[in-house]
Amino acid sequence: MVDFNYFAPTEVVFGSRSEEQLAMLVRKYGGSKVLVHYGGGSARKSGLLDKIERLLREGGVEYVMLGGVVPNPRLSKVHEGIGLCRREKVDFILAVGGGSVIDSSKAIAYGVPYDGDVWDVYMQRYTPVTCLPVASVLTIPAAGSEMSESSVITNEDGDVKIGYSNNLSRPKFAIMNPERTYTLPPYQTAAGVTDIMMHTMERYFSHDGDMNLTDAVAEALLRTMMECVPEVLRDPENYRYRAQIMWGGSLAHNDLTGCGRIGDWATHQLEHELSGMFDVTHGAGLAAVWPSWARYVLKCDVSRFVRFAVNVMGVENDFTDPEGTAVRGIEAMERFYHSIGMPINIRELIGREITDAEIGEMVRKCSHGYTITQGQFKVLSPEDLTAIYNLAR
Amino acid sequence: MVDFNYFAPTEVVFGSRSEEQLAMLVRKYGGSKVLVHYGGGSARKSGLLDKIERLLREGGVEYVMLGGVVPNPRLSKVHEGIGLCRREKVDFILAVGGGSVIDSSKAIAYGVPYDGDVWDVYMQRYTPVTCLPVASVLTIPAAGSEMSESSVITNEDGDVKIGYSNNLSRPKFAIMNPERTYTLPPYQTAAGVTDIMMHTMERYFSHDGDMNLTDAVAEALLRTMMECVPEVLRDPENYRYRAQIMWGGSLAHNDLTGCGRIGDWATHQLEHELSGMFDVTHGAGLAAVWPSWARYVLKCDVSRFVRFAVNVMGVENDFTDPEGTAVRGIEAMERFYHSIGMPINIRELIGREITDAEIGEMVRKCSHGYTITQGQFKVLSPEDLTAIYNLAR
Repeated sequence: MVDFNYFAPTEVVFGSRSEEQLAMLVRKYGGSKVLVHYGGGSARKSGLLDKIERLLREGGVEYVMLGGVVPNPRLSKVHEGIGLCRREKVDFILAVGGGSVIDSSKAIAYGVPYDGDVWDVYMQRYTPVTCLPVASVLTIPAAGSEMSESSVITNEDGDVKIGYSNNLSRPKFAIMNPERTYTLPPYQTAAGVTDIMMHTMERYFSHDGDMNLTDAVAEALLRTMMECVPEVLRDPENYRYRAQIMWGGSLAHNDLTGCGRIGDWATHQLEHELSGMFDVTHGAGLAAVWPSWARYVLKCDVSRFVRFAVNVMGVENDFTDPEGTAVRGIEAMERFYHSIGMPINIRELIGREITDAEIGEMVRKCSHGYTITQGQFKVLSPEDLTAIYNLAR
Repeated sequence: MVDFNYFAPTEVVFGSRSEEQLAMLVRKYGGSKVLVHYGGGSARKSGLLDKIERLLREGGVEYVMLGGVVPNPRLSKVHEGIGLCRREKVDFILAVGGGSVIDSSKAIAYGVPYDGDVWDVYMQRYTPVTCLPVASVLTIPAAGSEMSESSVITNEDGDVKIGYSNNLSRPKFAIMNPERTYTLPPYQTAAGVTDIMMHTMERYFSHDGDMNLTDAVAEALLRTMMECVPEVLRDPENYRYRAQIMWGGSLAHNDLTGCGRIGDWATHQLEHELSGMFDVTHGAGLAAVWPSWARYVLKCDVSRFVRFAVNVMGVENDFTDPEGTAVRGIEAMERFYHSIGMPINIRELIGREITDAEIGEMVRKCSHGYTITQGQFKVLSPEDLTAIYNLAR
């Protein structure tokens, strides 16, 4: 068991009436002029943005609006937000949306008080010492950015997608109304749950197997997500199951499921190159890569994969054949991905064969020009990364 | 599922080297003159207090010391602390110990900036608007006060034990080194785990049965605690199991296991009267009362007790006899309590028969002079409270 810090200060306000508290929460955390930052038209169409504007006006909070954040959020939009915040003297950023909007908001929050280009932060050329307060009204459960310290930004100049983590940007509050997720399309719902589960699994596949409390909580979360997703695909307006997915998304990425262990995160890195190159949905990209990662690293610790197979996937334990049990756990996950409409390889993800040149380019980026390894469960060289992409073709 | 807030901002620094960060953490959260508040001689004898004094000196943080906090912490000690803090211009309170010391520290923190008697806060005659920052170096996993907003103080003038909750007093940080719990005597270890489990069970026995994520996390926590306690009773210096108990104590009471539901808390109230009157260990008092509470309220929701029996206690589910399965779950918990040296009734707790007059007095206090009910799973009138104490004799 490794020493750990656990710090999840975000005030979560959860439920069907949670939005009513918006203006009070903004003022409580020091906001007087708010940037309302959002994505496409769905937040407007659903009436959520109108309601937020009304709540802020009635609560006496000034605001400016900035929409247009896209999945795999772009640096150019971040620059636009920084400029707007400076001109309008914004002192608080409210993200209305999912992970892309929250991540973009965090980047703006770093950038406003920094004289240089905020990309320096993501390139780790500059460590922020302050940032604007960020909070969210969550509409897509997936990224867990509403309670996390991390954000991922894509620099269109070179299709480079880079993450950065700093407790400074942990959101002050998160308003979570499960009803706001009723209109999520099935593919986005399923990809979101895949991302939620993967945030847990990246931490679960670790050699620190002596922290059973963390394992047991992670297994509880994974099993519950697998129960919930078929229910909401069948019945999109089921509050009970939508609520559990929404709360599961936060718990999966606020570090609860990582206490006492070193996470792996190779699957996320392998996927970042995929969505950087093909602009695919992050959760779907994770599903396309994970089974191949799992088969490739299995022998590093068969017992952990057996535990996963039995305690999470409900596979019968064949005590005479641990490796067979482990493989059946991976196969069960593939069947689950397929059952919710997720791909299990790159061809299913992008709709065509990937080329050797494309794999080569992704490996080059993923290894930062062959200079770094990825992963902890098995440390992956550029050759290993190539092998996994090939397994996942 | 009920709407909920989740707010657990305490920075947890966990591990065998966690204490080294003390002075940095105190300064980070604004402390320049610290009250080091502690209990009996064990913190001195173990060398912990010497280490804390050295770390604060080396870190350039001024401090004053105040020891002598006892279990079921007293209002008189709180008054003494308030006086000392005012005289010495203390701006930060560091609790070194377990729940009693942390609770006493929270009361001092409320009292220092308040002109009246801090007992007004506990009697809900005054709502604090500010309090000194509190943090802890935890040595006893049990109360969960290190991350919670609650504290319980005993006013010796009338043996009244009253709890008060306010987010203002959530500790800023908690330093948790499992090695500091190696010297806990078996009885205190077992009583601590009983308290941890009961914090989870008070929230688990609820009619909001549609939040499976919270249930599954609670069951994971309960099963893990039951695995760990025999291990540390056999091998008190086992880091792995001591660590899980320590972290379990925080997770059981930082509201994670209550998300989306209304807790019961009748067992805690029934026990507060016992420890108010007999000065017994809180965890042991809970074990003495819970089985009788459970039998008395069972019929309100047999299915919940069946779930507890099967998912937590590992009882085989007799689908033809839900009530029998439920009762076997309660009996299994009684066997577990006995196996770790805990009582299962009041006679075993206090070593003699309790009298009718004593029960009458406890019921009078527990119902605030027959004016209020207790509990949510079943709302308990004074007659119900009397019946449960009688079952538990």
